[in-house]
Amino acid sequence: MSAVAGSERRARAVLSFLAEPGEAALGALLKSCGPGEILDAVLSGKEPRAALPAVGRDVPGLASAFGRWRARAGRIPSPARLEAWERRGMRLVCPGDPEWPTQLDVLGDARPLMLWVQGSADLRFACLRSVSVVGARAATGYGQHVATEMAAALAERGWAVISGGAYGIDSSAHRGALGADGVTVAVLASGLSYGYPQGHHELFAAIAGQGVMVSEWPPDRAPTRPGFLVRNRVIAALSGGTVVVEAALRSGALSTARHARDLCRPLMAVPGPVTSDLSAGCHEIIREWGAVCVTGARDIIEVVSPSGEGLGPRRRGPACPRDSLDPVTRAVLEAVPARTGSGPAAVAVTAGVDLNTAIGCLGALAAAGFVERCVRGWRLRKDA
Amino acid sequence: MSAVAGSERRARAVLSFLAEPGEAALGALLKSCGPGEILDAVLSGKEPRAALPAVGRDVPGLASAFGRWRARAGRIPSPARLEAWERRGMRLVCPGDPEWPTQLDVLGDARPLMLWVQGSADLRFACLRSVSVVGARAATGYGQHVATEMAAALAERGWAVISGGAYGIDSSAHRGALGADGVTVAVLASGLSYGYPQGHHELFAAIAGQGVMVSEWPPDRAPTRPGFLVRNRVIAALSGGTVVVEAALRSGALSTARHARDLCRPLMAVPGPVTSDLSAGCHEIIREWGAVCVTGARDIIEVVSPSGEGLGPRRRGPACPRDSLDPVTRAVLEAVPARTGSGPAAVAVTAGVDLNTAIGCLGALAAAGFVERCVRGWRLRKDA
Repeated sequence: MSAVAGSERRARAVLSFLAEPGEAALGALLKSCGPGEILDAVLSGKEPRAALPAVGRDVPGLASAFGRWRARAGRIPSPARLEAWERRGMRLVCPGDPEWPTQLDVLGDARPLMLWVQGSADLRFACLRSVSVVGARAATGYGQHVATEMAAALAERGWAVISGGAYGIDSSAHRGALGADGVTVAVLASGLSYGYPQGHHELFAAIAGQGVMVSEWPPDRAPTRPGFLVRNRVIAALSGGTVVVEAALRSGALSTARHARDLCRPLMAVPGPVTSDLSAGCHEIIREWGAVCVTGARDIIEVVSPSGEGLGPRRRGPACPRDSLDPVTRAVLEAVPARTGSGPAAVAVTAGVDLNTAIGCLGALAAAGFVERCVRGWRLRKDA
Repeated sequence: MSAVAGSERRARAVLSFLAEPGEAALGALLKSCGPGEILDAVLSGKEPRAALPAVGRDVPGLASAFGRWRARAGRIPSPARLEAWERRGMRLVCPGDPEWPTQLDVLGDARPLMLWVQGSADLRFACLRSVSVVGARAATGYGQHVATEMAAALAERGWAVISGGAYGIDSSAHRGALGADGVTVAVLASGLSYGYPQGHHELFAAIAGQGVMVSEWPPDRAPTRPGFLVRNRVIAALSGGTVVVEAALRSGALSTARHARDLCRPLMAVPGPVTSDLSAGCHEIIREWGAVCVTGARDIIEVVSPSGEGLGPRRRGPACPRDSLDPVTRAVLEAVPARTGSGPAAVAVTAGVDLNTAIGCLGALAAAGFVERCVRGWRLRKDA
C-alpha cells in the first residue's frame, strides 16, 4: 500500500546509505529537487551546482556534503539486498505514503528522508495517540517502576508509548506497554537488523510483534554517538508529548526533552526524591523549562489531550442495528477485529473488497458508532 | 522599646481575650476606630452603632460579634496577670511598634490585632530575610530529612526559617535551623505558655533561646481546630516565600500554601517520589498552582531573592579604618556582636548611648562596611 512511486522510493532508500539522518544540506536540496534528481547528481560526479541547476538558493555546505556522499557510493545496496530486507519484514515508509507520520513534517529540513519500519502496527495510526516516555539508561528502581506503570496505564487507555529502545527507562516504558497489551514504538539509533543494544533483541522482537520498530538508518548500520542525539528529534516529533521519567542534570536523556520544547510539543517530567541525582534533570526542566510535573498517566493524558479524550471510557451504542447495514458494509464490519485493530488494507483483503470501498465503509461504520480508530487502524467499539 | 501608647497596647491585649484572631468584624472596626474606643464600646453594653458612632460604613456581623465578645468579658486578665506574662519573657508587639513585622499589613482586615512574642531574636529583623518551611505532621523520613537539610542550609546563608511548631515537617525545619546556629520563628496556634504540642516544650525553649516564638492567642489559650487554619495566614504573610516540603492531597498542610498564593507571595514545593501520597500535594501545587519546584536552599533563595542576595559570600573590607571612627561610633561598633546579632536597643545599652544615637551610628557603620543587618538585628561583617 505505497503511494510513493517506486523510483522515488528507491532513490530515498539509496540516499539513506549515503547521507546521515538529519543532514541539513540534503533536507534543503529536497525542497527544490526530487530524491532521484539528487541521487543522479551525486552519482554524476559533477559540481553540485552544475549537476543540480534547479537548486534556487545557496545551500551551505553543499560541496562538502556531495564529497561525503560520493565517498560512500560503494555502500549502495543492490536492489536484491533491499528486497531481502523487505522480505524479512522491514518496510520502507516514505513521505507521502499512507503510513508516513505527517507530524514529522514539523522537522523541516531535518525531516527524515524515509523510515525503515518493522512490526504489526501501523506507524501513522500508532502515533496519532502517542506519548514519548524517555529517560536515563542508568535508571533507579524507582524510575523503572514509574516508567513501567505509567506506560502500562497509558497503553490501557489506548495510547501508544514511544521510546528509544535503550536500557533503563526506555525499556521499562516499552515493557510496560507490552505488558498491558498495548502498542509501543521503538525508534532506534541503529539499523533495525543491527538492533542496538544487542541485549534487547528479544524485547525488539516483542515490540515488532505488538507494535513497531523504526529507524532512519539502513538496517545493518551500527549506531554512532551523535546518532543518538539526531534520533531523539524523531522521538519528540512523532508523539503528542514527551515525558522524562529520570534524567541527571545535563545528561543526554534531556536531549529529547529539548527537541520537544523546541518543537513546542507538550513537555512533561516525573518528579522524584530531591536526594536522587537521577531526578535532578526532571526537577530542573520543571523549574527552568516549564515542563509539566506529571505523576501518572492521568496527568499525562490531561496534558496531551486537554479535551480529556482518552481519559476514561466513553461508550455509547451504535446509531443503527447491524441488520440494517448493506451487505458490503456488513462484510467490512465483520472483517474489523474486536480488539487489536487492523489497517484498512488488511480489512479490505479479509472482507474481499477493494481498498477504497473498505475505507468508505469504515468511515460510515465509524460515523454510525460500530468501529473506532485505534493505534493499529480500526477495531470494533466495545459497545457495538 | 515600644512606640505604641500604653493605653492602646492594653486595649489590644484585652481585645485579644475577647475576639478570635482573624475576625473580620474587628479588623473592619479598626479601620475607623482605635482599639480603646472599640474596647470601651464592647464593655459599655450599648448597641454597636450607638456605642461607635465613628464607624462609617456598615460592618457585617457586627451585632453578633459584639455579643460574642461581651460573653467573654469574664476572661479579661488583670493588669497584674498581663505583667506576670511579660515578666516571664512574653512581650506584646503591636502594629506601630519597632518590632512589628509590617509585612503582615497585607492581611488587611485579617491583620493580627497584636502578637505575643517570646525569644532572643527581634521578630521584625528575623522576618526581613525569611522563608516559611511547612508540611505534613505525619511526614516521611524523606520529608523530615529534606526539611532539616533545607532549613540548615537556609540558616547558614542568613535566612530565618519560619514554621508552625508542629510535629513532622515543622519541627524538622525548626531543628535544622537551630542546628545550623540560625534563627527560627515558630508561629503557634495556641498561646505561648500553653505551647501546643506539649511534646515540643523543649524545642520551643530552644527556639525562644535562639529565635522567636509568636502567637496571636493569649498565652494560656489551648488551640482549636479552626485556629490552625487562621494561624497559617500569619506564617504565609510573615515570610518572603513559603515552601511546602510534604503534603497529602487536600490536606491542611496546603492551607499555608493557599494563603501564600492568595497573597501573591512566592510559593514553592519540594518534589518527591510519585509513589508517595505525602508528595502528592506538592506535585499538585506545582502543576496546578504554579508553585516553583525547589530542590534545595539555593533554589529557594533564587526565588525569594531574585537578585541573588544571600546566595553566597559577598565580602569586602570596610571603607575606612576603625581608628578613624569617632569615640561614640567606636563604642557602638564595639557593642555589636560578631556573629549572633543584637537589636539596636541592646546595642545602645551595651554602648551606653541612647537608642537614637545607636541607630544613627549603626547606619553609618553599615554604610562604611563595618556591620550588617542580620536576622537578630546587627552584627559585625566578617571581613570588618
